[in-house]
Amino acid sequence: MVGGGAAGSEDLAAAFTVGARLAVLGAVVVCGGLGGVMEAACRGARSAGGLTVGLLPGRSAAEANPFVDVAVPTGLGELRNGLVVAASAAVVAVGGGYGTLSEIALALRAGKPVVGVRTWSLVRPSGDADDGMVVVDDPAAAADLAVSLAGAGAG
Amino acid sequence: MVGGGAAGSEDLAAAFTVGARLAVLGAVVVCGGLGGVMEAACRGARSAGGLTVGLLPGRSAAEANPFVDVAVPTGLGELRNGLVVAASAAVVAVGGGYGTLSEIALALRAGKPVVGVRTWSLVRPSGDADDGMVVVDDPAAAADLAVSLAGAGAG
Amino acid sequence: MVGGGAAGSEDLAAAFTVGARLAVLGAVVVCGGLGGVMEAACRGARSAGGLTVGLLPGRSAAEANPFVDVAVPTGLGELRNGLVVAASAAVVAVGGGYGTLSEIALALRAGKPVVGVRTWSLVRPSGDADDGMVVVDDPAAAADLAVSLAGAGAG
Amino acid sequence: MVGGGAAGSEDLAAAFTVGARLAVLGAVVVCGGLGGVMEAACRGARSAGGLTVGLLPGRSAAEANPFVDVAVPTGLGELRNGLVVAASAAVVAVGGGYGTLSEIALALRAGKPVVGVRTWSLVRPSGDADDGMVVVDDPAAAADLAVSLAGAGAG
Repeated sequence: MVGGGAAGSEDLAAAFTVGARLAVLGAVVVCGGLGGVMEAACRGARSAGGLTVGLLPGRSAAEANPFVDVAVPTGLGELRNGLVVAASAAVVAVGGGYGTLSEIALALRAGKPVVGVRTWSLVRPSGDADDGMVVVDDPAAAADLAVSLAGAGAG
Repeated sequence: MVGGGAAGSEDLAAAFTVGARLAVLGAVVVCGGLGGVMEAACRGARSAGGLTVGLLPGRSAAEANPFVDVAVPTGLGELRNGLVVAASAAVVAVGGGYGTLSEIALALRAGKPVVGVRTWSLVRPSGDADDGMVVVDDPAAAADLAVSLAGAGAG
Repeated sequence: MVGGGAAGSEDLAAAFTVGARLAVLGAVVVCGGLGGVMEAACRGARSAGGLTVGLLPGRSAAEANPFVDVAVPTGLGELRNGLVVAASAAVVAVGGGYGTLSEIALALRAGKPVVGVRTWSLVRPSGDADDGMVVVDDPAAAADLAVSLAGAGAG
Repeated sequence: MVGGGAAGSEDLAAAFTVGARLAVLGAVVVCGGLGGVMEAACRGARSAGGLTVGLLPGRSAAEANPFVDVAVPTGLGELRNGLVVAASAAVVAVGGGYGTLSEIALALRAGKPVVGVRTWSLVRPSGDADDGMVVVDDPAAAADLAVSLAGAGAG
């Protein structure tokens, strides 16, 4: 579950829905643990009784949003984006920040399933659209697809 | 909660007790997620209804021991030892492996409380014993002390 | 200097030119140290008397291409992409791999100058093209621009 | 080449000698890039015409000491200690800080040769001295031994 700290209301609503749906499906929601899309996804997961993990950029658990169950301060700064990807069986990307873009790219690089909602479009040097990420309009459907692609119950 | 994968029965018993006591105290047990002392601590925590987090060296959640609730594959190899320390509010070290020694050192370097049970003694170049780590014989007392030193409920 | 291991001949020629021009300008060429675009850039830099640094994903200096002067095995896997960005004052991206995309994104996220040659186009969720990366057709001009944007002599 | 930022004059003199000798032997000196032992080793290496690499904890190359040829800002904080070890074919440890101790431990864990000069003594839980690190009084001899143990020309 990746997405930026600065997000509009539609992104936040989408992230809430994704988090809630992931929780319903039994997936653990792993994210960067801060505000914006990350917080909305955690809030959604929490509302559905799910477990949330925040891999934080800094050294203090206190920077986690209040809906993170397991706060992991990493001290890695933005390098923790790679850790969020490594820790996830599939990635749902919401919104259009550069951090989110880095996580999409790292997940595609690692061969992990990526489902995008209201996020970047990637155009290859040839001018062709890249088809590595599956683009889905409906956030709940995105969560369903991610869990399905991830295999049994991981998130 | 740090300690090695290769451990004798006394280390394993101590780790089980530490994990169980941490869970009773409401602390989340964070460890490297593999076998030996790590597995014993997770088993102890689970037996007391606690939550366990395993920060794994590899890329697959499947390498976690069966008592890890939240498996975080990091792909960092032994560099994940630093992450275990960063993610912890206090460290309880059990046993005498080099990985455990690295975690003791990184925690002391970061100014975090370290409680040692059946682990390394550190002698400064001057010949004086280092007093950065608190050495405790009783594993349950070590857990109590770690939680106390960590402040409110972190582990 | 970022770019993938699998690259066509035009990408390789562009990377060679970028590396050579960076060296002429006195910049150290930092890259991932493997083959393809990375090797071509190092070869270019070496041909112009420059210094090359390879931040390798694995644990062995032997995996560096033969034009790396300073091989740094990191053991970080693809997380070393973030390190390549952190270590660079500006980024020149050549080619269209996902690893390259991750480095573009991480550099933009960190607010570092990014100059792209024959690489990804990024389209925001709004449908607008992202203008964070400067796109340049001529590889030598890309190197000039990167050094200029990076400030005094870094690369 | 590992050692702390806060060091006495004997440690600094030893580090200078180690750095100079490593350079004479053709080894690249890799260190944490800051002051104290790190700076003394770089100064020594530079005095003998050697190449020095500083893997810095922060994000700015400006924090490197003036004798670092290749400054690599990592943004990893103290986790960069593990990177210094990963990047080295053998480790020479000078002085008694906790960061140095962590690097000794990580190197021993990774099975890399470690030569200690005026540094920690490690006592196993059994009360036996650990013999993983070779202790040498003479700094030049320590450098010779490290290069010899590392194999052909790495440092």
